[in-house]
Amino acid sequence: MSEPFQLPIRVYYEDTDAQGVVYYANYFRFMERARTEWLRSLGVDMARLQDEERRIFVVTEVQAKFHSAARLSDDLVVTASLKGLSRVSFDIEQKIFRDSTDGELLISGMVKAAYLDADTMRPKRVPSSIFEE
Amino acid sequence: MSEPFQLPIRVYYEDTDAQGVVYYANYFRFMERARTEWLRSLGVDMARLQDEERRIFVVTEVQAKFHSAARLSDDLVVTASLKGLSRVSFDIEQKIFRDSTDGELLISGMVKAAYLDADTMRPKRVPSSIFEE
Amino acid sequence: MSEPFQLPIRVYYEDTDAQGVVYYANYFRFMERARTEWLRSLGVDMARLQDEERRIFVVTEVQAKFHSAARLSDDLVVTASLKGLSRVSFDIEQKIFRDSTDGELLISGMVKAAYLDADTMRPKRVPSSIFEE
Amino acid sequence: MSEPFQLPIRVYYEDTDAQGVVYYANYFRFMERARTEWLRSLGVDMARLQDEERRIFVVTEVQAKFHSAARLSDDLVVTASLKGLSRVSFDIEQKIFRDSTDGELLISGMVKAAYLDADTMRPKRVPSSIFEE
Repeated sequence: MSEPFQLPIRVYYEDTDAQGVVYYANYFRFMERARTEWLRSLGVDMARLQDEERRIFVVTEVQAKFHSAARLSDDLVVTASLKGLSRVSFDIEQKIFRDSTDGELLISGMVKAAYLDADTMRPKRVPSSIFEE
Repeated sequence: MSEPFQLPIRVYYEDTDAQGVVYYANYFRFMERARTEWLRSLGVDMARLQDEERRIFVVTEVQAKFHSAARLSDDLVVTASLKGLSRVSFDIEQKIFRDSTDGELLISGMVKAAYLDADTMRPKRVPSSIFEE
Repeated sequence: MSEPFQLPIRVYYEDTDAQGVVYYANYFRFMERARTEWLRSLGVDMARLQDEERRIFVVTEVQAKFHSAARLSDDLVVTASLKGLSRVSFDIEQKIFRDSTDGELLISGMVKAAYLDADTMRPKRVPSSIFEE
Repeated sequence: MSEPFQLPIRVYYEDTDAQGVVYYANYFRFMERARTEWLRSLGVDMARLQDEERRIFVVTEVQAKFHSAARLSDDLVVTASLKGLSRVSFDIEQKIFRDSTDGELLISGMVKAAYLDADTMRPKRVPSSIFEE
């Protein structure tokens, strides 16, 4: 399990709230953008997966600690890395840093995602090819 | 064309931004909630319409003036009233007030919505029964 | 620690995504609405707290399991109940059910929130009066 | 008034709704991202403007036509160009295309923004330096 995937994200007004910081639920949007781009880098396009193969990824569990808040105009780096893989789900570690992975750690989280049949919503075996080196 | 339909909405942190007011795009969420509840009051449920009849409402045009801003914890009233009806679309006037329709007018808008086949995305005749007295 | 606070929430298009279900991050919006209304029922208004007393609640940790998905037009009930209280933070159990607390359990979560000075962002003692019977 | 500013934006699940397309209010988020990056390219950072100069941009009017829908995984280009400038506000034309400005035009809009004192919310003269060549 190699270097975490990294996605840069800039904070806009839409992401913030009246406390002057990013609204807590919106960090999960950022995390999903990173997961999506990470899968794309591995050859998986979400739209094609859903439309053509009738498979979807669904989050079944999340944990997150909010260490420090991101603010308007911040440049964030959101990471995603595989921490575990079972037949039908996988565990992804995700972190959000300010500026770079050497910058302040704002959020640390774990996301469990399942691989489902989009029609029956039943678990399907994760194609091993996705996460192979 | 009778009294406007009214929906009360309270402003939460999720609706606001770092300017301390409701983020401008989120007023369109509020307007859609009012349109949805207005249609529900006329016997139309969006989920049943899409799933069983394969028909959807789609916004094709909006205009809005932002007169004054809503803030955290504000109690708003969002109105919807039919201003025009063609074979395949209808025009809805929407206003957002603070506290009540006697309160400060915050937003005034017009929304044009089309009635489409959910599979082909082609226009369908709006059932006249919906808006009949 | 008494009966959980309950807030009814209806699912609109804005809450859903192209999988046809509520987007996972949006359940955290629902949970925050329930926390806000629960605090309001205990005499705490978020806007007055921030503007007049310069105090804010900030989420520092969340855990959630997504058992089953909510869909467009669903009527949900979101609960909040106090599970622990320290000098500067408190733990809130939150659940989301379909239709009623006797209905299907969709989401179960825990949220840790801190009570901060809005200017310095430093922890402040939670007023014991809030959660007293 | 030169070439429109262009910002590429990819569509994620968070942007879509249960109709399988981008939720209509979210196009206004995309438009604001383009306005923000356009102003940044002109030397204006929103956070510094608000925090240090106590000035904010506020949308006072929008018009938009939704010609065709964006979908999950679409690569969009969002444009912004100055169409008019008064002492205290300016008019921005914004378009959203699929793939490139040679691609399908999905949305066309006009946004009027005012320049305000962040404390008094009163109009302030737009610094002419921003939009000078």
